[in-house]
Amino acid sequence: METKKASESITIMTELVLPNDTNLYENLMGGRLMYWMDIAAALSAQKHCNAPVVTASVDNISFENPVKLGNVVHIEAKVTRAFTTSMEIHLKVWGEDVIQQYKYKSNEAYYTFVALDPNRNPRPVPQLMPETEEETRLYEGALRRRQLRLILGGKLKPDDATELKALFIKD
Amino acid sequence: METKKASESITIMTELVLPNDTNLYENLMGGRLMYWMDIAAALSAQKHCNAPVVTASVDNISFENPVKLGNVVHIEAKVTRAFTTSMEIHLKVWGEDVIQQYKYKSNEAYYTFVALDPNRNPRPVPQLMPETEEETRLYEGALRRRQLRLILGGKLKPDDATELKALFIKD
Amino acid sequence: METKKASESITIMTELVLPNDTNLYENLMGGRLMYWMDIAAALSAQKHCNAPVVTASVDNISFENPVKLGNVVHIEAKVTRAFTTSMEIHLKVWGEDVIQQYKYKSNEAYYTFVALDPNRNPRPVPQLMPETEEETRLYEGALRRRQLRLILGGKLKPDDATELKALFIKD
Amino acid sequence: METKKASESITIMTELVLPNDTNLYENLMGGRLMYWMDIAAALSAQKHCNAPVVTASVDNISFENPVKLGNVVHIEAKVTRAFTTSMEIHLKVWGEDVIQQYKYKSNEAYYTFVALDPNRNPRPVPQLMPETEEETRLYEGALRRRQLRLILGGKLKPDDATELKALFIKD
Amino acid sequence: METKKASESITIMTELVLPNDTNLYENLMGGRLMYWMDIAAALSAQKHCNAPVVTASVDNISFENPVKLGNVVHIEAKVTRAFTTSMEIHLKVWGEDVIQQYKYKSNEAYYTFVALDPNRNPRPVPQLMPETEEETRLYEGALRRRQLRLILGGKLKPDDATELKALFIKD
Amino acid sequence: METKKASESITIMTELVLPNDTNLYENLMGGRLMYWMDIAAALSAQKHCNAPVVTASVDNISFENPVKLGNVVHIEAKVTRAFTTSMEIHLKVWGEDVIQQYKYKSNEAYYTFVALDPNRNPRPVPQLMPETEEETRLYEGALRRRQLRLILGGKLKPDDATELKALFIKD
Repeated sequence: METKKASESITIMTELVLPNDTNLYENLMGGRLMYWMDIAAALSAQKHCNAPVVTASVDNISFENPVKLGNVVHIEAKVTRAFTTSMEIHLKVWGEDVIQQYKYKSNEAYYTFVALDPNRNPRPVPQLMPETEEETRLYEGALRRRQLRLILGGKLKPDDATELKALFIKD
Repeated sequence: METKKASESITIMTELVLPNDTNLYENLMGGRLMYWMDIAAALSAQKHCNAPVVTASVDNISFENPVKLGNVVHIEAKVTRAFTTSMEIHLKVWGEDVIQQYKYKSNEAYYTFVALDPNRNPRPVPQLMPETEEETRLYEGALRRRQLRLILGGKLKPDDATELKALFIKD
Repeated sequence: METKKASESITIMTELVLPNDTNLYENLMGGRLMYWMDIAAALSAQKHCNAPVVTASVDNISFENPVKLGNVVHIEAKVTRAFTTSMEIHLKVWGEDVIQQYKYKSNEAYYTFVALDPNRNPRPVPQLMPETEEETRLYEGALRRRQLRLILGGKLKPDDATELKALFIKD
Repeated sequence: METKKASESITIMTELVLPNDTNLYENLMGGRLMYWMDIAAALSAQKHCNAPVVTASVDNISFENPVKLGNVVHIEAKVTRAFTTSMEIHLKVWGEDVIQQYKYKSNEAYYTFVALDPNRNPRPVPQLMPETEEETRLYEGALRRRQLRLILGGKLKPDDATELKALFIKD
Repeated sequence: METKKASESITIMTELVLPNDTNLYENLMGGRLMYWMDIAAALSAQKHCNAPVVTASVDNISFENPVKLGNVVHIEAKVTRAFTTSMEIHLKVWGEDVIQQYKYKSNEAYYTFVALDPNRNPRPVPQLMPETEEETRLYEGALRRRQLRLILGGKLKPDDATELKALFIKD
Repeated sequence: METKKASESITIMTELVLPNDTNLYENLMGGRLMYWMDIAAALSAQKHCNAPVVTASVDNISFENPVKLGNVVHIEAKVTRAFTTSMEIHLKVWGEDVIQQYKYKSNEAYYTFVALDPNRNPRPVPQLMPETEEETRLYEGALRRRQLRLILGGKLKPDDATELKALFIKD
C-alpha cells in the first residue's frame, strides 16, 4: 500500500452562517460548527484512504471567538498521521466578516476516523508522509494525542502512556 | 446566590434518525449527534443558571456503536459541577431500535458552557450540590477534567495540575 | 400476545424553537409543533407494539399559548388504549422559557396509529393495561373518542355511537 | 368592513416528497403533511383578512392513502366561513404519481385561524360570502363544526350545541 | 406518441419565505428561489412526458424585485415546446405581501429538462400543442432560445443559428 | 477607490451530497446546486467589494455530468470583472467520487451581483485587475456577456451590441 502525502488530503470548506445556525445572541451554535467540521474531516480522511470512513472520536475542542450571523466559516482539514486502520485529522476554523474585512480564529480540533471495508470491518489505510515543518510537528504530536485518547477511553493504563508521561515529568 | 441540585438540570431529548442525518452506510453521522448533544447540554446548563449560555469546550468523545437510520437517539444531560462562571455538563447517549427492542450505548461526553450577562460578559452561576452517588463521583472528577482542559488549551502548566498528576503517578 | 403497561410507552421529547420554526411574530408555527408531536407519538406507539406504525388520524387540537423563539418545547407521549390493530396516543405539550423559569401549557392532543406487518397490512397489537388514575381515565375516554372519530370519518352512524350519545343526553 | 368571496382566498400549494419527509416505508410522514397544510391554511386565512394570523385549532384529520417518496403533494386551501375574529379553512390534499399518471385523495381537514392586531390581540375579520354549491355547503357546516370544537375544548356544554345535537337525534 | 396540450403541464407552487431563506437584508436569496423554480419546472416537465426528468440547462435569469421575509412566492411553470427528448419550461415568479395586498413580479425564466428511460438514457417525449396566443408566442420563441443555448454551450456555430441571426440583422 | 486583484476574491466551497439533495435517480438536483453556487458567488463578490450584495442575474447554465449521492461538490468562484456597481463572478463546479478517486466537471456559470449601500441603493465597487492568462480572457469576455444579458433583459438593442455582433459576423 502506497504512502501518501499530508497535502493530498487537504479539504477546504466555506459556509455562510444563516439564522437557523445561531443562538439567541445570533452567534453560531457550537454544535452546528462541530457538524460541519465532522463532514470536512470525513472528506479529508476519505481522500487519504479512498474508502468509506466513520467518526471514531473527537478530541477536546475549545471555542474561542463566536462566529456571527451572516459571517463566513472557513474550515481547513488535513490528515496528520495514519495508524493501522485509523487516521487523525487536524482542523483549523476561522470566522470572517467579509464586509468589515475582519478574519479571526474560531478554534482548532482533532477528529479520528476509521476506514471500513465492505463488511463494515476496519481496513488498513496508507501511511502518511508529512512534508512541511507544521505537518511534521502535527505528525509527531499524534502519538501523544492517541495515548491520551486511549487513556480517556479506558483502553490504556496511564503508566503505559510513555509519550504522554513525558508531558507531566519535564514539559 | 442559592445552591442548586444536580437533578434540577436534567434534560431528556429524543430524536428520530432521518435519511439526511446518515452517511453512506445509513448510520447517524457523528457531527449530527454532536449538534443534538450541544443543544441538550445548553438547555441543561440554562436550567442550572437561568441565563443565556454559550459552548466553551467539548471534551474527548468516542463513538462506540453506530446508530442506524430509523433508530431513536436518547440523550440525557445533567450538570456535574459549577465553577465561577462556567458549568460542566455530562451527557449519556443511547441508540434504540424500538421495533427489535434493542437499546445500546452510543457514547458519553462532557460539554462546558459559560453563562453570560446582558453585555455578553461571563456572569456568576449558582453552585451545584450533588446528591446521588453517581452525581458525587461526577462532581469530584470535574476538577481533574477541568485541569486537563486547561492544559490542553495551553492555560495551565502540567506541573500545576495537582489533581491530574495523581492519575500518572499511582492508579 | 402479552398485555403491556401504559408506562412502558412513555416518550419524552425536548426541542429548541429556532428561527425557521417561527412565524412573523417569532412564535412557533402550529404546523411545526404538529410535526414534532407526530414523531413523539409514533415512537410511543412503536414502543407499545414493537412494529412499524403509520399515522391514521389526529383528533382536534387547540393551540392555547404561543411558544416563543428560543423557548423550549416539551412533549410527553403515552399510549392510552390499544384496539385490534390501532393505538391511541395522548400527548401533553408545554413551552418553557428556561431563563425566566416560566413553564406553560401549550396544548394536548390524541393521535391514532396503525401497526403494519411486512406486507404493509394492519397487524394485531398487544392490549394496554392502565395503572394510574389518570391512565384509567384516559383509557376509558378512548372508546368515546374513537366513536367520534368514526362518525367524523363517516364510518359510524351517530345512532350507533352509544358511548358518545351519553355525552349529549345527560353530560 | 367589506364582505369577501370564498374564492378570493384560494391557495394552491405543490410539494415534492423528499427522503427526509418519509418514514421507514418511504411514505410521507403525517406530521410533515400537517406542517405544509398549516402554511397553506395560514396563507388562505391571510388572503381573506389581510392581517397576520395564528393557528387556533385543527379539526380531526384522517390519513387515507399514503403519499410515496418522489410523489407530489397538492394542497388546496379555501376559507369556508368567517366568525368575529376567526376563520375556518377547508383543505383538500391529493397525492400524485406524475410518472404513472395516478392521482389519489390523501385527506381533507379544517384548520381555524385567528387574526391579530399590532398588539397581538384578536381583531375583526371581513365576513365571507359563499358562491358555489360546495362553498355554501361548507359555509353551513361550519357552525356545527365550531360547536364541536367548543365542546371538545370544554368551552360549550353539549346541551347548548343546538346545531350539533341535531346530528345525534335524526340524520 | 400522442401530442399533449401546453395547459396539461401547468404547475403552481406557493412558498412562504422563512428566515433561513433570506440574506442579511431579509430578502429571499436568489439561489433559494432557483431551487424552488427547479422543482416546479421538473414537475411540469414530468406532467408532459410522464417519465423521470433531469435538469439540462437554465437560461439567463434576471432578478427584478426582491421578495421579503414573510412574503409569499408564487411560481407558475408550463412547458413551451417539446423537442426530441427535451422540453423547455417557462416559469413566471411573483412575490406577494398578503397583508398589504401587494403583488409584484419577481422574475421569469426558461429551464430545459431531458426525459430519461430506465437505463438513464434520453427517451422521446410527446410533442406539445400550444393553444392560447401566449402559448403560441412562447412555442415559436423556443427555437431561437434553443439556438442561443447551443451556441453558448459550444455545440452550434453562430453562422448556423438561422433563427438567432435574424435577431441581429433586422429587429 | 483602490483596484483589486481577481485572485483576492477566490472562494472555495465543498459540499457533501446528502439524500435530501437528490432526485429519484439519487443524483444532485440542479436547483440545489444553483443554491450553493449562489452562496459561493455572493461570498466572492463580497470579498471584492466589502459590501452587502444581491443577486442581479444568472447566465445560461448547462448541467453536464450528474453528481451522485455521497459524492462531493467542489465550487470555485472568482470575480471576472467589475462594472460601476455590479460584478460578474465565474464559477467552476466539479463532482468527486472520493472513494473511486474520480473527479469530473459538472458545469460552469456566470452570476452577476450588485453592491448595495445602507439605503439599499447600488453603490460603486472597486475595479478589478486580471493577472493570469485565464483571468484576462474572462475579463475580456465579460463585456460580451454583459451585452447579451442586456439584450436578453430587453435593455439593449441588438444593433448596439457591438461586442456581441462580432460573434455573428466572423468567428
